[in-house]
Amino acid sequence: MGGNASGKQSPLVPLGWEVLYYVSGCLAGLLGERKTVTELRFDQWTNLYAPRVGHMKSSEIRELLAVTARPDVISFAGGLPDTRVFPVHQVVEATQRVMLREGAEALQYGPTEGHEPLKRHIVSIMAEWGIEVGIDDLIITDGAQQALEFLGKIFISKDDIIIVEAPSYVGALQAFSGYEPNVVAIPLDEFGMRTDILAERLEELAKLGRQPKFLYTIPNFQNPAGVTLIEERRREITKLSKIYGFIIIEDDAYGRLRFEGEDVPPLRSMDENVIYLGTFSKIFSPGMRLGWVIAPKAILEKIIFAKQAANLCAGSFSQRVTEEYMSQFDWRQNVESLIDLYRERRDAMLTALSEFFPEGATWSHPNGGLFIWATLPDGLDSGEMLAEAIREAKVAYVPGRACYVGKGGNSSMRLNFSYCPPETIEEGIKRLGAVIKGQLALYRSLFQEYPPESKNGSE
Amino acid sequence: MGGNASGKQSPLVPLGWEVLYYVSGCLAGLLGERKTVTELRFDQWTNLYAPRVGHMKSSEIRELLAVTARPDVISFAGGLPDTRVFPVHQVVEATQRVMLREGAEALQYGPTEGHEPLKRHIVSIMAEWGIEVGIDDLIITDGAQQALEFLGKIFISKDDIIIVEAPSYVGALQAFSGYEPNVVAIPLDEFGMRTDILAERLEELAKLGRQPKFLYTIPNFQNPAGVTLIEERRREITKLSKIYGFIIIEDDAYGRLRFEGEDVPPLRSMDENVIYLGTFSKIFSPGMRLGWVIAPKAILEKIIFAKQAANLCAGSFSQRVTEEYMSQFDWRQNVESLIDLYRERRDAMLTALSEFFPEGATWSHPNGGLFIWATLPDGLDSGEMLAEAIREAKVAYVPGRACYVGKGGNSSMRLNFSYCPPETIEEGIKRLGAVIKGQLALYRSLFQEYPPESKNGSE
Repeated sequence: MGGNASGKQSPLVPLGWEVLYYVSGCLAGLLGERKTVTELRFDQWTNLYAPRVGHMKSSEIRELLAVTARPDVISFAGGLPDTRVFPVHQVVEATQRVMLREGAEALQYGPTEGHEPLKRHIVSIMAEWGIEVGIDDLIITDGAQQALEFLGKIFISKDDIIIVEAPSYVGALQAFSGYEPNVVAIPLDEFGMRTDILAERLEELAKLGRQPKFLYTIPNFQNPAGVTLIEERRREITKLSKIYGFIIIEDDAYGRLRFEGEDVPPLRSMDENVIYLGTFSKIFSPGMRLGWVIAPKAILEKIIFAKQAANLCAGSFSQRVTEEYMSQFDWRQNVESLIDLYRERRDAMLTALSEFFPEGATWSHPNGGLFIWATLPDGLDSGEMLAEAIREAKVAYVPGRACYVGKGGNSSMRLNFSYCPPETIEEGIKRLGAVIKGQLALYRSLFQEYPPESKNGSE
Repeated sequence: MGGNASGKQSPLVPLGWEVLYYVSGCLAGLLGERKTVTELRFDQWTNLYAPRVGHMKSSEIRELLAVTARPDVISFAGGLPDTRVFPVHQVVEATQRVMLREGAEALQYGPTEGHEPLKRHIVSIMAEWGIEVGIDDLIITDGAQQALEFLGKIFISKDDIIIVEAPSYVGALQAFSGYEPNVVAIPLDEFGMRTDILAERLEELAKLGRQPKFLYTIPNFQNPAGVTLIEERRREITKLSKIYGFIIIEDDAYGRLRFEGEDVPPLRSMDENVIYLGTFSKIFSPGMRLGWVIAPKAILEKIIFAKQAANLCAGSFSQRVTEEYMSQFDWRQNVESLIDLYRERRDAMLTALSEFFPEGATWSHPNGGLFIWATLPDGLDSGEMLAEAIREAKVAYVPGRACYVGKGGNSSMRLNFSYCPPETIEEGIKRLGAVIKGQLALYRSLFQEYPPESKNGSE
């Protein structure tokens, strides 16, 4: 029988849930939102839950989406593409054509693997991006997020080892944590995952007789750090996967949003055993909830079984409308417009950071994607500061520690630049800079005679 | 570390996977489909899978959807509503209005709980159906199927006890089986689940110190049996849930498709701790992949966490188009038309069964829904017969044993009547009757002198 979930605690705490508890509590309190942290509510069913529920906590993504809905808050917290510039008449036209031509099928159940014409379209896109696959090498998922959930379900047993980047995408950590892994987090630098440290960790694990199940990486314009994994390290990782027998999961959500420079070959193009995740969320629309996963056929079959159990198939309606849009309209031109828009906003944020953030603060300079990762001086705590930032300055961000498993990220923050216009970005960073400078002055006056021990920094 | 999944087998075999193996193998072979059963393929990653993967098998739903796509096969196998009669221009109009009014939001991420106006619409529908809830008592899921997956994840640890009907919905058995439960299956009669047998089993389990996690029922026009749980037994089940401390999951996928007679009050109207699953798949469109789950707040929060990890949110596009359709068009009138259509088809199937099935065969007489459950005489095996039915007679159905956990259902079959027009139903049942009569003649000539021991029948 399942134990009492709420009284139980894994030795290695995945996802740093006490941090999420703090963050969500803080935001909920400030915003007058309904409290979502279960521990505060009497729950008569705790004896019925599976122990894994103890690891299934609300991420701050949820709370932060609530913040973004408030018009008086400038939010750098979400990971939202800007859908406001999208030519909506194209979707209307695509829907009309689909419904008149194949309305009954668009309203019906479809195959678990996905709508075949859409899969064919993905095959041709992937070829352009350097990955040669056939139509049977991939299935359609509900965004890349659903593939993460499936991979957790398929590979992770309680206490299995998985490898992630530090920091990493909070939604991936959340999807994996439901299956109770032990997480080994490998730090990033400006060239992506530190493969030298990875090699050391793998050797240590091998000595202990432990084989990691998989390594999860976001190689392009990483969420949250904004860095891109260089080709040499990509090759190194595929070599290590052969030596130590783990699977590589390559989450390429942001690869098409490159503002300058040359594409780096995907890991999947170097090794056909790599599991590759793609999504329409950043090149078309997150509201369609469509992504895809490419995997070796044996693994893909497990993913299909998981997809059947999860929701039978992706929506026929949104798949067919998306296929019609991709094949009948110049989606590449729309992506080019987005890139121009986001580049301008990134530049606005970089300029504002230089102007308004205090000396000693550092930040990444991403060549694409949606995020800048900033680190505060003197070990200032971004999590503790968030309450004041929202209340006093009406500006929101993701505290860095939410992107870490266990310790780390306390001084850092994820700043999204894709959603707000340049003026708003400048205003928001100005306000945030003032909060930071105020905290810094307070901090320095408190500790000028008794400097605290160095805190656990982000990198 | 996770063991070798492929070499491992639970003592109580969930979902009767060897049956699914047989069924899918048989269908795939006959139809020249790609073989989907993993055991036939060399899989270098078996040492990396979590043990639960050993229970994640393809259901024949997948194979059967492939069958339905072949124009020369009359398929009674799917569970498809008939979307061919749907006024598609209403969807075009709804999409146009949504995109012009709120295009950016329809293409954007949305809240995990679902689009609020759609939730409000569900609240008002539920009130009409006898269930009083507020907007915070439910969330939107990707069809009712996704709620089943979440409930498995939240409640089931390996070897936990769950209670289902025998026979039950194969997709539910599949969703639960991924979490490795021990399944107690309670037989049905024409009044639904046999609560006398349920009470006995619960007492036996209590003596063994085992508490079931939940009881899963499809009370209206059950899939696959077509029977409706009578009110007296509904009250009995809610009483037993209080005594023995398990949760009730009420899957009401078909309740709105009543052809005659009066609605029976939902279990959720008798007990507010019941988890209720609804879906737009049968009253609007499965292609939108939208359903909802009503649960006590503490449990609903766990479901929200699971939804975040699974796919962040349901699609904004399909939610908003569905909401526009439900609020701007006379969806009740469309459902009435469906009911008239399905009633006529059920009658056609009942008439054809009387005419073409051999003496000794029996079948249910559903007052609604999509399915008739037929049982063959003399212990004829519907699973063994399926190959011939498809090859010789070009007619498909779901063999009864696929709807059972472990043994049972060998002589039975699920026949869908909602998808084919009456003439096709008559023709299909005629062909199927001929196959059965042929098998019966063969069987009787073989065993007239040495009758076999009675086989494990369905009911």
